[in-house]
Amino acid sequence: MANFKGHALPGSFFLLFGLWWSVKYPFKYICRKKKKACYLGTKSGFQRLELIEGITKAAFALIGMLAEQFVPDGPHLKLYNHEEHQWDHLMNWQHTTMYLFYGLSGLVDIVVHTTNAVPVAFDKMMLSIAVFIEGFLFYYHVHGRAMLDVHVHILLLVAVFGGALCLSLEVFFRGNIVLELFRSSLCILQGSWFWQIGFILYPPGGGPEWDQMDHNNVMFVTMCYCWHYAFALFILALNYTIVAWVVQHRLKEEQPTEFERLKTSEHDHESEEEM
Amino acid sequence: MANFKGHALPGSFFLLFGLWWSVKYPFKYICRKKKKACYLGTKSGFQRLELIEGITKAAFALIGMLAEQFVPDGPHLKLYNHEEHQWDHLMNWQHTTMYLFYGLSGLVDIVVHTTNAVPVAFDKMMLSIAVFIEGFLFYYHVHGRAMLDVHVHILLLVAVFGGALCLSLEVFFRGNIVLELFRSSLCILQGSWFWQIGFILYPPGGGPEWDQMDHNNVMFVTMCYCWHYAFALFILALNYTIVAWVVQHRLKEEQPTEFERLKTSEHDHESEEEM
Amino acid sequence: MANFKGHALPGSFFLLFGLWWSVKYPFKYICRKKKKACYLGTKSGFQRLELIEGITKAAFALIGMLAEQFVPDGPHLKLYNHEEHQWDHLMNWQHTTMYLFYGLSGLVDIVVHTTNAVPVAFDKMMLSIAVFIEGFLFYYHVHGRAMLDVHVHILLLVAVFGGALCLSLEVFFRGNIVLELFRSSLCILQGSWFWQIGFILYPPGGGPEWDQMDHNNVMFVTMCYCWHYAFALFILALNYTIVAWVVQHRLKEEQPTEFERLKTSEHDHESEEEM
Amino acid sequence: MANFKGHALPGSFFLLFGLWWSVKYPFKYICRKKKKACYLGTKSGFQRLELIEGITKAAFALIGMLAEQFVPDGPHLKLYNHEEHQWDHLMNWQHTTMYLFYGLSGLVDIVVHTTNAVPVAFDKMMLSIAVFIEGFLFYYHVHGRAMLDVHVHILLLVAVFGGALCLSLEVFFRGNIVLELFRSSLCILQGSWFWQIGFILYPPGGGPEWDQMDHNNVMFVTMCYCWHYAFALFILALNYTIVAWVVQHRLKEEQPTEFERLKTSEHDHESEEEM
Repeated sequence: MANFKGHALPGSFFLLFGLWWSVKYPFKYICRKKKKACYLGTKSGFQRLELIEGITKAAFALIGMLAEQFVPDGPHLKLYNHEEHQWDHLMNWQHTTMYLFYGLSGLVDIVVHTTNAVPVAFDKMMLSIAVFIEGFLFYYHVHGRAMLDVHVHILLLVAVFGGALCLSLEVFFRGNIVLELFRSSLCILQGSWFWQIGFILYPPGGGPEWDQMDHNNVMFVTMCYCWHYAFALFILALNYTIVAWVVQHRLKEEQPTEFERLKTSEHDHESEEEM
Repeated sequence: MANFKGHALPGSFFLLFGLWWSVKYPFKYICRKKKKACYLGTKSGFQRLELIEGITKAAFALIGMLAEQFVPDGPHLKLYNHEEHQWDHLMNWQHTTMYLFYGLSGLVDIVVHTTNAVPVAFDKMMLSIAVFIEGFLFYYHVHGRAMLDVHVHILLLVAVFGGALCLSLEVFFRGNIVLELFRSSLCILQGSWFWQIGFILYPPGGGPEWDQMDHNNVMFVTMCYCWHYAFALFILALNYTIVAWVVQHRLKEEQPTEFERLKTSEHDHESEEEM
Repeated sequence: MANFKGHALPGSFFLLFGLWWSVKYPFKYICRKKKKACYLGTKSGFQRLELIEGITKAAFALIGMLAEQFVPDGPHLKLYNHEEHQWDHLMNWQHTTMYLFYGLSGLVDIVVHTTNAVPVAFDKMMLSIAVFIEGFLFYYHVHGRAMLDVHVHILLLVAVFGGALCLSLEVFFRGNIVLELFRSSLCILQGSWFWQIGFILYPPGGGPEWDQMDHNNVMFVTMCYCWHYAFALFILALNYTIVAWVVQHRLKEEQPTEFERLKTSEHDHESEEEM
Repeated sequence: MANFKGHALPGSFFLLFGLWWSVKYPFKYICRKKKKACYLGTKSGFQRLELIEGITKAAFALIGMLAEQFVPDGPHLKLYNHEEHQWDHLMNWQHTTMYLFYGLSGLVDIVVHTTNAVPVAFDKMMLSIAVFIEGFLFYYHVHGRAMLDVHVHILLLVAVFGGALCLSLEVFFRGNIVLELFRSSLCILQGSWFWQIGFILYPPGGGPEWDQMDHNNVMFVTMCYCWHYAFALFILALNYTIVAWVVQHRLKEEQPTEFERLKTSEHDHESEEEM
């Protein structure tokens, strides 16, 4: 769907996941660090969250696939136009393929977090493959388009391949908070950049078109990409702070003052050791 | 051998190895996890398998080398045509070189798994080198051909260099199930893609030729490559499931019910710890 | 600021940091190795140093941002020239963005070394991102300029991306002296190269202009870059030697001869083990 | 020195080092594995070897630098020709720079293996930098030459950058026999390829010139490069076998039969555990 909505839809998916991760991973990290016993912070609580995440991912992928196939001007599962002897709606098929791999990643998540049969690292591996496939298809997607169009998609690829690399590192360094938050930031970046691409290539409300061949536009867009990332880092820092404050606050309500002071001093000791 | 058979032959080799690996590694992993004492799951059993694999690899490589040299239109070990002052059948010589390195990898496998003289990690190192050499030769192979021809070979390189990278990681992370299955999937992909290249460049049965310069064909082929990989992942998942089911089933036959229940509860405990 | 000062300013920042690191890390390493109890060599002493470093970094970044925005021919926070319908002073805005990320890195340093809330590895991660962003913006910065101009900036990118890679490794191998000194050397290289770029592109004192299209100049500049690095390595070796000598010397003053001899023999024993 | 000797000289240096490493590292590995107490196999014995290696490396580098500067048609330390207003003998200066970094690597080797002041991993780091600088200078060296000339140098870069990567891994995985032998093989390859370049670009004895623009020559040369590597691997395997046989043989002479049998069975036990 080469229009505004076709970029806003995946952008929203990525933004949602990125924002969710920017809450989940700090929460997990701070709970683990403070050895807090709230329900959500337990192992089975987190496993349930991972399961829900997998189901949501698979559902979003299914929605994306159906949207790409069955929008009014979509291919409706027809791949080859025998009358005109050419491929039919290749763009939509490519997008469908991208969603397909995210769907597979969702399925693997579900299997990994409901059974013991499969090693747990497969969820990161499959997600890494899905993100790589997305970048791989985009890379051959933009051939022969106008300069600015190519450039905004290539900038997207930086976030995409960065995410794939980060995920493949997570196969080996599972549960590393730095990698997890880095991935979250790249996911938010990807989401907000999808929206930005929509605004640049298909200005909504009939705004003025961008000059596709102006080199200054290319330079501005590169810089704008960095601002998006600064924004993603800001969101991350904000969510981290809120989560840390909430976890700290809940602790105060649930436990008696005396015991808490003991806990806190222990924790200080720990974090000193950690340093 | 720039014809259909010349692509089907290596394709079949890679498919065979990929499928074999997609059975072997899950089997090895599940046996190790369940501490099952069936013969094939023992250390010496696996070592024998590795040895057979090495011999097969060396044999396949020899067949490939002989086929490339002694087909009717082959070079018959002649490298330079002194009459025409030019190199003779360079393509066949390049393919022979590729097979040569796989042969060396087979030899190293045999040495590593029969003697103690050589560190065991050399088998992965040598296979990694062989795969890299394959990609390296292919990279300079396709210079100056038509667009689609170049593109299908470059797509092949993604699987080839991915495999070489994965194998070089296995030198350091030996026996990592995620890397082993990832390598298996890339090997199946390479095999099935070799067949696909044969069908695209030399349509059998006198089918219609593909338009080498149509950009839509390039885009379709890229997407088709992703479907091949989805197919490879599906095969992998299927084989994993079958192997897991078979190992579980054999266990039931061999052990008494009481003891088994004990075992199972222990195993649950273990896998919980693992999580 | 495309003039001599615009290159001398960041060059001085990088030189200062590189030189400082080339003193700090050897000092830290030798103190740790000799288990010396001088104030600066303690944990809290180093943490205070890191804090000061973070504040300095943030201050330098702020100075850089203000300089880029409010020099007489700067944009004064105006991004778009509505009269001429084009972007305003994009170069200055790009440089501002670079400084912004270094500023963020300074802020993260301050937070990491004053509170326990955030994992300590974030300081390296954020600095790695800042250095990567610098390289990323430079990469799209030099499009369409003269050959020599492009080349000197691409050489800069080698140091920049090398530094970003080194820093991202330090996230996992924190406190590795080899990586720390490698990073210091790249930082000195970047600083001195910024000065060199200034001298090449804007010869001060009205010197003769360099021929931008002469291939010999490109070759000389490449070689000159290597000399800069040799110089950076020399500075590093010199500082390491001085620091080692100073630490050794101070030790002699503070401790009695007898005890010292004991210490020294212990240390010899240790370093043998280390070998 | 763009002539046959200018390629044979570094080729011989690399060949010598590669062959020496292909003997040293297997010897070190087998001694360590068999816990043999021969003089050369001891820690101080190996340290002395490393020292001699460092001195040799520095000496070779000095010879190379002097040769490049003071051959009859060399620059004799003159960098700029003020009469013709152009750089003087840039090629020789670039080669001198390459040798300079190898000389620095030799110096670091000497310091690391005579004092305890510097962490031992610096020898690999500095060698990695030296190899990278060699590749870096070669990369900008061949701009604008004929196709075959460019191609043979780019093939060289594969060995060079492969070696630099391998060495930088050795900073973290010190003493890994797989990496050490891989580096040895790349060093032999580089040495023999330097000779091959000499033969291709400056056929000695007035042989026929190679057609620089024939694509078949490019393809043959690529394949030839692989054969050189197969040859390097063969040399490595041969030396490994000889060293293993010699160590085994010396053992028989030095120890009584009874004790030996005991030793051997122990060793078998060990290697089983290792598997």
